[in-house]
Amino acid sequence: VSILVISRDPMPEKLIAQFRQQLPDQEFRVWPDVGNVEDIHYALAWRPPNGELAKLPKLKAILSFAAGIDHMTGDPALPKNVPIVRAVSDASKLTMSSFCAAQVLRFHHRLDLYAEFQKQGVWKQVLPRDMADTTVGVLGLGVLGLDLAQRLLALGFPVNGWAKSSKPIEGVKLFHGAQGFIDCLASSSVTVCLLPLTDETRGILDARAFASMPKESYVINVARGGHVVVPDLIAAIDSGHLAGATLDVFDFEPLPADSPLWKHPKITVTPHTAGRMSSVRVAQNMVDMLRQATSGASLQNVVDWSKGY
Amino acid sequence: VSILVISRDPMPEKLIAQFRQQLPDQEFRVWPDVGNVEDIHYALAWRPPNGELAKLPKLKAILSFAAGIDHMTGDPALPKNVPIVRAVSDASKLTMSSFCAAQVLRFHHRLDLYAEFQKQGVWKQVLPRDMADTTVGVLGLGVLGLDLAQRLLALGFPVNGWAKSSKPIEGVKLFHGAQGFIDCLASSSVTVCLLPLTDETRGILDARAFASMPKESYVINVARGGHVVVPDLIAAIDSGHLAGATLDVFDFEPLPADSPLWKHPKITVTPHTAGRMSSVRVAQNMVDMLRQATSGASLQNVVDWSKGY
Repeated sequence: VSILVISRDPMPEKLIAQFRQQLPDQEFRVWPDVGNVEDIHYALAWRPPNGELAKLPKLKAILSFAAGIDHMTGDPALPKNVPIVRAVSDASKLTMSSFCAAQVLRFHHRLDLYAEFQKQGVWKQVLPRDMADTTVGVLGLGVLGLDLAQRLLALGFPVNGWAKSSKPIEGVKLFHGAQGFIDCLASSSVTVCLLPLTDETRGILDARAFASMPKESYVINVARGGHVVVPDLIAAIDSGHLAGATLDVFDFEPLPADSPLWKHPKITVTPHTAGRMSSVRVAQNMVDMLRQATSGASLQNVVDWSKGY
Repeated sequence: VSILVISRDPMPEKLIAQFRQQLPDQEFRVWPDVGNVEDIHYALAWRPPNGELAKLPKLKAILSFAAGIDHMTGDPALPKNVPIVRAVSDASKLTMSSFCAAQVLRFHHRLDLYAEFQKQGVWKQVLPRDMADTTVGVLGLGVLGLDLAQRLLALGFPVNGWAKSSKPIEGVKLFHGAQGFIDCLASSSVTVCLLPLTDETRGILDARAFASMPKESYVINVARGGHVVVPDLIAAIDSGHLAGATLDVFDFEPLPADSPLWKHPKITVTPHTAGRMSSVRVAQNMVDMLRQATSGASLQNVVDWSKGY
């Protein structure tokens, strides 16, 4: 039994060394040195080159280095009969949820306005927002969205959620379907996008969506750049309708130097860091996923192709 | 039975009107129009003039407009045999805890550094902090500190607490006494001050305290300005020992224009806004406190003079 680490990007040697050290009984190969394809039962994949996973006839599972799998769904030959496990760990949930909470709280407590006052040397108290009025809408209630919803509730925010599943979540007001999407936006002061990127959700945050949000509301995108139609977002902010946005993800990363997002005074740009963990944590999580997969236990966070993620 | 609203500051008429509207069966008087002192059973106090409360022989309780009572302890004639009720409500806990959480998360996720990168147009990911390493030390575990500790735990932070009481709090590592104070600081990446201001705690965050904190740690003061020795704090930051601080409270408020705090690049100044609520909420809370007091129910959040707060 061998494990293939497969990526079109060079993988850090330290990472491979960590795999080998922690799982000394497994043989690790690194693409393109695949060796005999018959040996390979597991693939650890990050942006795998198109067609390469399909060449592995004995594959039992593909383990994605990321929670999203859009880094591999561009492969037309991606095997659909092999379970794909998304990288979600307690640590990745913590870092993603706390990043989103940081942005929600920054908006709620008007930290940018007070920073501006400080710069001007002005002591000025503005009417505080009432937490009961800062409803946060979470788009996507998968493992990450659910975790965020629960932590926001624990902080005292009212929470809306837009989800495919209709399983009730205590304390969360749920919305479903196309009309539910608009209703969720319309009743949220802050909208956080944690959706998977699929054909259905590409460009979902567009002019129509922004127009549905209440005046002075705020947008946080930590999912994928493809969810947001950036010119529509800028127009909605510049017209005064939206208060601003935090974008952690972009269509092209690194964000090109000539993007108008860099200099927009009401848009916070962060470099795809919301869910980022140290490489040690990432490796540890992949090791944990591999241990679980090779132990024969039932796989968790497996992609459901009927949903598309 | 009459209720006296007493303050050396002019009290907003809207506030008094709200009291009268919500408690139509009570007679409200506003200092200095005290009338017959024999009638007055309750005083709602904010910075009461020295000696005035002592003139009310039938006083059953003093209701403070603030959670802290240092605005009245300067009165040498403050009656010690009359219970003083501190203004603490679910809403004030929420706003205070969420403000502190906002500052902790801002530090944890290096939002200031990423804002600087954005200003420079630089896409750069820095090693994320691991939440398990961002232990937050809460100084003072009264109703506010306890609420904060619990919400920080719910966000995923390890929490230390320095308290007088030795009642265990699930998930919080407790420290007591003088040595415990130093130990608590030494094992916290972020220290949040929520102490009452008493003779014991005045100037408690001084050079020695800052030297006890780990390198690159962060200080948040939302209690009273008197807790922090500002020149010591600036020295500890400028030496590179501390990463920075957020100060919401100051010895003199508004913070004087010539304070070096305004322009310090690593100190965030906010205008005593951490626990602020809308005047409607403040009034509502005083009404609730009055209702409770006049109903004969046992009083909550009463000052304990053996502790000094």
